[in-house]
Amino acid sequence: MTTICVDVMGADKEPAVLLEGVAQALAADTDLEVLVAGAAEFVEPFAASHDRARALVTTEVITMSEHPAQAVRAKKDASIVRAAAAVRAGEADGLFSAGSTGAVLTAATFGVGRLKGIKRPALSLPFPGISGRPTVFLDMGANADVRPDVIVQFAQMGRAYARAVLGVAEPRVGLLCNGSEETKGSEMALAYHEALAAADCGFAGNAEGTDILAGTFDVIVADGFTGNVALKSIEGTGKFVLKRLKAAMGASLKNKIGMALLAGSLKSLAGELSGDEYGGAVLLGLRAPVLKGHGATSARAVCQGTLAAVRVVRAGLTEKIADACELSA
Amino acid sequence: MTTICVDVMGADKEPAVLLEGVAQALAADTDLEVLVAGAAEFVEPFAASHDRARALVTTEVITMSEHPAQAVRAKKDASIVRAAAAVRAGEADGLFSAGSTGAVLTAATFGVGRLKGIKRPALSLPFPGISGRPTVFLDMGANADVRPDVIVQFAQMGRAYARAVLGVAEPRVGLLCNGSEETKGSEMALAYHEALAAADCGFAGNAEGTDILAGTFDVIVADGFTGNVALKSIEGTGKFVLKRLKAAMGASLKNKIGMALLAGSLKSLAGELSGDEYGGAVLLGLRAPVLKGHGATSARAVCQGTLAAVRVVRAGLTEKIADACELSA
Repeated sequence: MTTICVDVMGADKEPAVLLEGVAQALAADTDLEVLVAGAAEFVEPFAASHDRARALVTTEVITMSEHPAQAVRAKKDASIVRAAAAVRAGEADGLFSAGSTGAVLTAATFGVGRLKGIKRPALSLPFPGISGRPTVFLDMGANADVRPDVIVQFAQMGRAYARAVLGVAEPRVGLLCNGSEETKGSEMALAYHEALAAADCGFAGNAEGTDILAGTFDVIVADGFTGNVALKSIEGTGKFVLKRLKAAMGASLKNKIGMALLAGSLKSLAGELSGDEYGGAVLLGLRAPVLKGHGATSARAVCQGTLAAVRVVRAGLTEKIADACELSA
Repeated sequence: MTTICVDVMGADKEPAVLLEGVAQALAADTDLEVLVAGAAEFVEPFAASHDRARALVTTEVITMSEHPAQAVRAKKDASIVRAAAAVRAGEADGLFSAGSTGAVLTAATFGVGRLKGIKRPALSLPFPGISGRPTVFLDMGANADVRPDVIVQFAQMGRAYARAVLGVAEPRVGLLCNGSEETKGSEMALAYHEALAAADCGFAGNAEGTDILAGTFDVIVADGFTGNVALKSIEGTGKFVLKRLKAAMGASLKNKIGMALLAGSLKSLAGELSGDEYGGAVLLGLRAPVLKGHGATSARAVCQGTLAAVRVVRAGLTEKIADACELSA
């Protein structure tokens, strides 16, 4: 049995939508147990009516608009804070939340705790590749400024993820840069390049923004500032293209019919670019796997996220990251 | 009469394709004169057969694969080097090239020359906004590392561009960052924020990657490292979406028909994301306007680029940049 703690509060959607996703995950995997963290009115009836579900009753919620670090400190009974504590106490093997990214990051880093020797946990997302080969992209924004030795750990964690979860034997790791040539880069990127080239981490050279969705690397690393800019640029372009296509739809009957015929493909495309197909972003470097789903979520995305957390637990990712970074786990 | 020097060599397409674009521009604007720079076999027959066209015969070409700075130094008779010199000598009012970005940057910076007082020229592109309102984005990669005072000049140059060319009276300038809150940012981004907030440049706060195509700011500034990563991430996402839609087309007859009906909209979308709709990237801060079109160009894109160069010249952008940066032009 694998136990995942699911925080059903703090997303843009109602807890009922998240619980519907949890029910789907329980139905899909009979070796899954869940600990649902949230307000009694939601989680108690759910636990009573579902096998393999227990309730973790909490009285507070951290909303998207609150300052993450302050809210995590102030709200000791917030669902995400209690969920992280439950994972640390061994009541669950992993955690899934669709709440505020900052609150999940902060609560998980302090509550679940870092693996000993990990300098900075990093937020990673497997992006789909044009070639069909996904690329693990990190850090998506957990750490704005990082030193070269931290980038090397990001590469090692990303490589462990690609091996353990995606089954890539020898992952090719790229450094996000302003050109593929090794002479390209800001002063900091040149220092990253030098450190990566000197380390045992599968480094294969500089990657460009165009490589993130091209499947040319198995892992692409960046500091959280650059990674967040790239992530949001991708997200914005996806939105732009879909909005333009929808606008084109109104322009003529021909376009309207074209869009209707393509609706299924457009929807799956939006899912791929949002990371929902892979169940959300994984916070790497903690003592147990923590997955962060999109706040504007759906029951299906919560189901995918919970099952992705199960896969990551069963793949032994935490132990493999410790090995990859040569830490005493 | 406005004279634009067009470098017809060094693109991924044959000079004949570029000359076809120049012919279209001449036909579209009867107050346009062109100086076509390239090999005699191409430019001499063109000049002989077109009114308002003169030939600038050159014997060398800088290809996409050459090291830009070395090639510009070594090939004194390269089309882009001679074109830049012709603009400096006053034989043309502006320059358009679809050659290697690095070669255009280097040849133009040294050949045309910087405006006195401009610390670093910056490569800018007006992106389409979802709202229909374009956003001038810079620096797209001319300068990997820049100091805060240089970012302030980028903001002033971008504001002058938005005013002079796009007709925005009071442009809102954003700083590309990993979050919209003013507390967000790398150490360098926080220093940029502080300098922008203290300067007269229309600064309106931090922008995220999602803002670049959203039309929420009239100008977004970044150092060339971050700007290039964002630009390439946008480009890669556009390619990814179009490829996925094309792949979906093969999946069923329904999708095939849908794609065929939408073909026109998809094509114009690709044009918008490549910058071709706006005639290419503008190198800001030089003594005359220099536009850089896509290397994988078309006659239509060269026509648009040449006409965009004309607009930028007639808008008096160079003088307005000098005013905005309080330089003695």
